[in-house]
Amino acid sequence: MIKVVAKNKVIEDQIETVIGMYEELVNATRKEVGCIVYELYQDEKDPTVLTMIEEWEDKASLDAHMKTEHFVRIVPLVGKFVAESSLNIYHKVY
Amino acid sequence: MIKVVAKNKVIEDQIETVIGMYEELVNATRKEVGCIVYELYQDEKDPTVLTMIEEWEDKASLDAHMKTEHFVRIVPLVGKFVAESSLNIYHKVY
Repeated sequence: MIKVVAKNKVIEDQIETVIGMYEELVNATRKEVGCIVYELYQDEKDPTVLTMIEEWEDKASLDAHMKTEHFVRIVPLVGKFVAESSLNIYHKVY
Repeated sequence: MIKVVAKNKVIEDQIETVIGMYEELVNATRKEVGCIVYELYQDEKDPTVLTMIEEWEDKASLDAHMKTEHFVRIVPLVGKFVAESSLNIYHKVY
């Protein structure tokens, strides 16, 4: 199992636009083989911080996800409204 | 439900020390009322990045966690070996 935390700081007046784009991405991604968890979160103090927390069966399923039509189409659209981002891929220690 | 992502970049030669401290923290925290998930992750590319991904029933249970004996004792010890850290408290959007 691998865990992914994709954190984005979006442009303030585009929060709702980005959330709408992510809704489609979440719905399509959850149908993928190997997707265990794919959830969008918003920071309590700073609503411009939108973070996807993901769980995948293995690296192969994550790689396949990043080649799907919905990923390749939606992620660059979201990117237009992202000021800063970080992506971490993790394995579980405990 | 609230989600917490506590990301720490630790000093390179202290990774195992910190992981050992976190083991005790994880074991004690999972017994707390209101703790749904409390898991330690290590970045695949940069092993100095150690991140706790947490799920709590509500803000009250998270606040109580931060006053427990194990939290108050262990977190400052870990802090001695942390070069950078970030803490985000999230609510779920989707």
